[in-house]
Formats: sequence, structure tokens, C-alpha cells
Amino acid sequence: YHLDTEDYLARLRKIEGQVRGLQRQVENEVYCIDILTQISSVTAALEKVALGLVDQHLRHCVMDAMTEDPELGEKRLAEATRAVERLLRL
Amino acid sequence: YHLDTEDYLARLRKIEGQVRGLQRQVENEVYCIDILTQISSVTAALEKVALGLVDQHLRHCVMDAMTEDPELGEKRLAEATRAVERLLRL
Amino acid sequence: YHLDTEDYLARLRKIEGQVRGLQRQVENEVYCIDILTQISSVTAALEKVALGLVDQHLRHCVMDAMTEDPELGEKRLAEATRAVERLLRL
Amino acid sequence: YHLDTEDYLARLRKIEGQVRGLQRQVENEVYCIDILTQISSVTAALEKVALGLVDQHLRHCVMDAMTEDPELGEKRLAEATRAVERLLRL
Repeated sequence: YHLDTEDYLARLRKIEGQVRGLQRQVENEVYCIDILTQISSVTAALEKVALGLVDQHLRHCVMDAMTEDPELGEKRLAEATRAVERLLRL
Repeated sequence: YHLDTEDYLARLRKIEGQVRGLQRQVENEVYCIDILTQISSVTAALEKVALGLVDQHLRHCVMDAMTEDPELGEKRLAEATRAVERLLRL
Repeated sequence: YHLDTEDYLARLRKIEGQVRGLQRQVENEVYCIDILTQISSVTAALEKVALGLVDQHLRHCVMDAMTEDPELGEKRLAEATRAVERLLRL
Repeated sequence: YHLDTEDYLARLRKIEGQVRGLQRQVENEVYCIDILTQISSVTAALEKVALGLVDQHLRHCVMDAMTEDPELGEKRLAEATRAVERLLRL
């Protein structure tokens, strides 16, 4: 899941293009079911970016802190859990 | 939940701006937890647009077809259920 | 997606068995990742039941009301949209 | 988010009772919207258990392995990310 900055930017630019595509679909009064299919695809793409960031956060921010300053490590780990909680909308 | 075309476009333009904001956050190496918070907000905004479209589809495409051509109405209703299935990623 | 009462009961009894299985996994201190896999499976099974109920509600409660009492039909359609909103946790 | 075994079991027993309640609702032909509300509540309760397990896995299984055997730690961290991926159904 680990992605570098360029990978993230490329994905986010593609997502930006998809959101502009959604605007064109709405302007051209495309059949709503087709717009819904596109929205499902965009939200999945965004959550895949999020999953990569969760993995990166655990692998770097949490792990680095754990070895240097366990208390900070615990704090960052709790932030990771809360981020997953928000992604799941709990 | 019923939204007109201008409402949808305004929401999608705001979402496009948020996705560009995500790119700036990645470029500026913002703390990953803050990027994750923003992604949760963007996916919720997109799914609210989707919910409006599901409601509109049921209220118009399905209902209109049901009175004129029940077979087409059934087909459109099945499309609505499949769209919800995709939103839930089942 | 249309399911009759017996289908729903059979699925819910299977889900009940899976939840008891989760309790045994916790009691036996099974590896947490395996418990998480099982939870993902149970929530998907529950949401598939929910999707069947949404389809059934639209197909029967909403459609029947629309022909007899359009105002009641509108009310039931709005309830369907709100139910999908809760499933998506928006 | 850290929960001990008794907490998990108490939550899962409550969820089991809710799933039996769903069966009674289906048998008594309760209004489908009310059944859907209950399902949304059960899936949220299950995912809260899952979130607690993810946190516990990171806090114990991953951290312990990281200090003793970094390669095993990496493996367990990747398992955590995949578990979140399944919860998000990506």
C-alpha cells in the first residue's frame, strides 16, 4: 500500500478529472444511474488513497515515534484508529 | 433530498476544489492524519450527492415509468437497487 | 433482490450463528485478524438483507401507496431515501 | 478503543440479541423501514467491535513484533491494512 508523493498526486489528479466529468454528466443531463456508477468509482478511488495514507502513517509516523518517544507513538496510533473510525463513519 | 441541476453543480464544484486542496496537502507534506480527515469529508459529500440522485431517480424516472409502462418501471427500480448496492459496495 | 419471509429468516439465522462464532473466536483468543475477517463477512451479509428490504419496500410499500394515495407514496419514498442514508451513515 | 475480552463478549452477546430481534421483526411482519433502522444499528455495533480489534492488533500484535522481529512486525502491519481494506470493502 505504500505510495510515494508522485503516486498520490497522480491518483488525486485523476480523481479531480473524474469529479469534473461528473459535472459534465450533470450539465448534459446524463441518466442518473450512470452518474451514480461514476460516483461509486470516485469514492472508492478516494478511499484507496486514504488506505495508502493509513498504511504510510502506521509504517512511518507511528513506528518512528514508538522507538524515539513511546508516548508520542501511542498518541499517533490513537490518531490512526480515529482516522479509520471516520473513514468507517462510526 | 431533491436537488436541481444548479445545486448538484455547486456541490460538485466544491468537491472539485476539495480534491485540489488534497493535492496541495500532499505536495506540502501536510500531516497524513489531516489529509485523511479531508478525504472522509470529500467522500461523505460525494455520497450525499449520490443519495440525492437516488431519491430523484426514484421520484421521477421510476415513478413516471410505473404509470406509463410498468415493465420499464420495474427495470428502473431494479437499476436503483443495484446503484444502492454499488454505493454500499456489496 | 426480492426475498420472501423464509429467505430473510434463513439469512438472519445464519448471521446469528456467525455472531455466536465471533464470541467463540474471542473466548478462544483467536488471532484478531481472523476475527476481523469474520466481522467483515457478517456486516456484508446484514447489508445484503438490508438491500433486499429496500428493494421490497420500494416495490411494494411505495408502489402500492403511489397508486392509492400519492401523498402516502411520497412519504414512503422519503422513508426509503432516509433508510439508505442511514445505511451509508451520512 | 482498547477493550478487554469481557467487553468484547458483552458487545457480541448484545449484537446476537439484536440479530434475534431482527428475526422476530421479520416473523411479525414489522414495517420494513423499522427493520432497516435496526440493521443499521447492528452493523455499526459490529464495526465498532472491529475498530477496537484493529486498535488492539496495532497496539499489541504489531508493536510487540516490531521490537522483537521487525520482519514479522511489517507482516502484521500489512495484515492490519488489509483488514481495514476489507472493512471499507475496497
